[in-house]
Amino acid sequence: MTGSHELQPNSGPLVGLKVLDLTRVLSGPYAAMWLASMGADVIKIENPKDPDVSRAYYPVVNGKSAYYSTMNRNKRSITLNLKAEEGKKLFLELVKDADAVIENFRPGVMDKLGVGYEELKKVNPGIVYASISGYGTYGPYAKKPGYDVVAQAMSGLMAITGFPEGPPTRVGSSIGDTVGGVSSLVALLAALYCKNRTGLGQKVEIALVDSLLALSTPDYVRYFVEGLAPVRMGNCYRSWAPYGTYQAGDGYYNIGCGTDEFFYKLARAIGHSEMIDDERFLTHEGRVENREAMDAVINEWAMSRSVKEVCSVLDEAGVPCAPVYTIRELEQDEHIAGARDMFPTINEPEIGTFRVTNLPLRFAGTGLAPIKAAPDLGAHNAEIYGDLGYSEEELVRLRERGVI
Amino acid sequence: MTGSHELQPNSGPLVGLKVLDLTRVLSGPYAAMWLASMGADVIKIENPKDPDVSRAYYPVVNGKSAYYSTMNRNKRSITLNLKAEEGKKLFLELVKDADAVIENFRPGVMDKLGVGYEELKKVNPGIVYASISGYGTYGPYAKKPGYDVVAQAMSGLMAITGFPEGPPTRVGSSIGDTVGGVSSLVALLAALYCKNRTGLGQKVEIALVDSLLALSTPDYVRYFVEGLAPVRMGNCYRSWAPYGTYQAGDGYYNIGCGTDEFFYKLARAIGHSEMIDDERFLTHEGRVENREAMDAVINEWAMSRSVKEVCSVLDEAGVPCAPVYTIRELEQDEHIAGARDMFPTINEPEIGTFRVTNLPLRFAGTGLAPIKAAPDLGAHNAEIYGDLGYSEEELVRLRERGVI
Repeated sequence: MTGSHELQPNSGPLVGLKVLDLTRVLSGPYAAMWLASMGADVIKIENPKDPDVSRAYYPVVNGKSAYYSTMNRNKRSITLNLKAEEGKKLFLELVKDADAVIENFRPGVMDKLGVGYEELKKVNPGIVYASISGYGTYGPYAKKPGYDVVAQAMSGLMAITGFPEGPPTRVGSSIGDTVGGVSSLVALLAALYCKNRTGLGQKVEIALVDSLLALSTPDYVRYFVEGLAPVRMGNCYRSWAPYGTYQAGDGYYNIGCGTDEFFYKLARAIGHSEMIDDERFLTHEGRVENREAMDAVINEWAMSRSVKEVCSVLDEAGVPCAPVYTIRELEQDEHIAGARDMFPTINEPEIGTFRVTNLPLRFAGTGLAPIKAAPDLGAHNAEIYGDLGYSEEELVRLRERGVI
Repeated sequence: MTGSHELQPNSGPLVGLKVLDLTRVLSGPYAAMWLASMGADVIKIENPKDPDVSRAYYPVVNGKSAYYSTMNRNKRSITLNLKAEEGKKLFLELVKDADAVIENFRPGVMDKLGVGYEELKKVNPGIVYASISGYGTYGPYAKKPGYDVVAQAMSGLMAITGFPEGPPTRVGSSIGDTVGGVSSLVALLAALYCKNRTGLGQKVEIALVDSLLALSTPDYVRYFVEGLAPVRMGNCYRSWAPYGTYQAGDGYYNIGCGTDEFFYKLARAIGHSEMIDDERFLTHEGRVENREAMDAVINEWAMSRSVKEVCSVLDEAGVPCAPVYTIRELEQDEHIAGARDMFPTINEPEIGTFRVTNLPLRFAGTGLAPIKAAPDLGAHNAEIYGDLGYSEEELVRLRERGVI
């Protein structure tokens, strides 16, 4: 029943896609790992003498980095020295038979090596070339080194994160890298769509700074129309209330009353239906203005209860709410860890079995590919170069000369 | 020279893709706006009596919401009442000729209306159906209402954002919605890739909670292997230093020394090369441990200078750094606003010309589609229903009966 009439479960939607992955550390490897998890054949290419530095990122168990394993699972691995003439030649042979190349070198590095998009296009006009960098490949800052923390600062996101009385605040996860990675996949897959229609590939690119900046699209509308710039609001929200973080007896939880109706439900649930008729609280505008008085009622009710009790009452009443979870709670949660399978296990021979964080994408037809261990450096040299017609003897010679 | 041998500039990579957009408010409209900006024909479908509530979101100028315009630019608009039998029939006719449907109703709503994926598949087995929701379409929390703030809390991101001595901190932008939207596009485009290969569509889905949780993939590796959970670190970084936010005389800037070499460059640039030989500062580990002593030297140097001066010196030395920008500075920046064109203008007849935040994706071959005003409600009824063969008279009757 499979084949042309049904999709294959647990295969992933990208079966048949071949990607050459030249990326290092986080943004690129993370993006390419998503491709591999969706069933693409992702070939990670590393310099034999200078492999991805994240192979040494802790935690390292029996010589293998669990960080590297998490970010490079489901890929194949070959070694290749792009600085060697024979290495370039090998790379072009690989490009001939690939659909996409993804890299996160500093702009100009690939061109300087003689394997920039213009060269690759000559051997395969259909190749889609995705570049991830801090600031993008053109413009006055293009050559500047970019890190997550740089993207967080320059994107404007830090300036609006945190409390009014405190400093700009970094998002506690390296979302410059991960959002940049995810955004690059939209570009890469859109270019593949175009290639399917036209037969032609193209170069696509993403800057970490741009990718974080774009997330604030809604925040800047008032500024562009009325001159009103967003400011740090802590855990409140400028236009809605109650909408933000509240304290219960044993911790924090969030309420998300995006509509008046949710507020009425909340008022009833906490035994204060009189708030519904209180003129101060009739609209979002009024509730934002009289936030303190409203929050006092909510807090008085919640402080004598646990987060769990509070969320259970509000859930029952249909009020959007959630505990502020840590990974310890996430890992135990019946929905997130259970039903949504957000923490599947990976089995690494050297490390043993441990959990990784799953992709957030769900495909009802094809599912995702089963999780496979990350490859040792060059583990697929024989297989992949063999497919290009290289004999074992030739590979030995290439290895001796430092080409692979 | 166009056609089969060259890509068309300023067209976008998704020319030829037809998407039915049933989304409201933020996550879905934002995602569908990306598709439209990439050249897809995105048809926004709204209930004539209950259109997208964001049409009323401020700032509203001459009756038109700039928020709506920003999030729904480049789309076409039709009205359609999916609760009416004739409305369902019309929708299925549209589905026959479409490539994808995107919606962000609460799970179950489309099925209850009789236009869930299983029904759509019957008239078009190739249709890709993308669902965005707070918690996903299955699992114990599936029917709970989800908002950005709920996703931020439950995803674990808030727990690791902020200062050790302060509370969990909300990211100041609604990234639950926007990251959820961007992630949904990866799913949708991957399913289109699969459709190109197999002829078959499928249902894909994303939960806002999952999409934020997935960003923390690198943060949880140590927990899963060593039991070490991430904690709030403020503007520092657990494993690298100097890497984070520093104060200059007139504001904040970030330093991102991800390698020892960058630190050496920094030490030289600020006239303290003695730090390079200081045993306390030889490695990331040492610098993290002796952060206070190291930061004192950096701060003493920076506090007598402006952010601009500090960044200019560090830039010159090749040290990753960035000012903590607000939108006022972003808008003036020669790289971001200039070269990267992150704030193009939109011309809305009712509002006038104003800026919007651009997509972060750059396509060297096809570019993006030129920015077009968001459509008035039902502006393309005659055009789109006309294409299905409905006469003006029939449309008048459908309108009178509240179907369109």
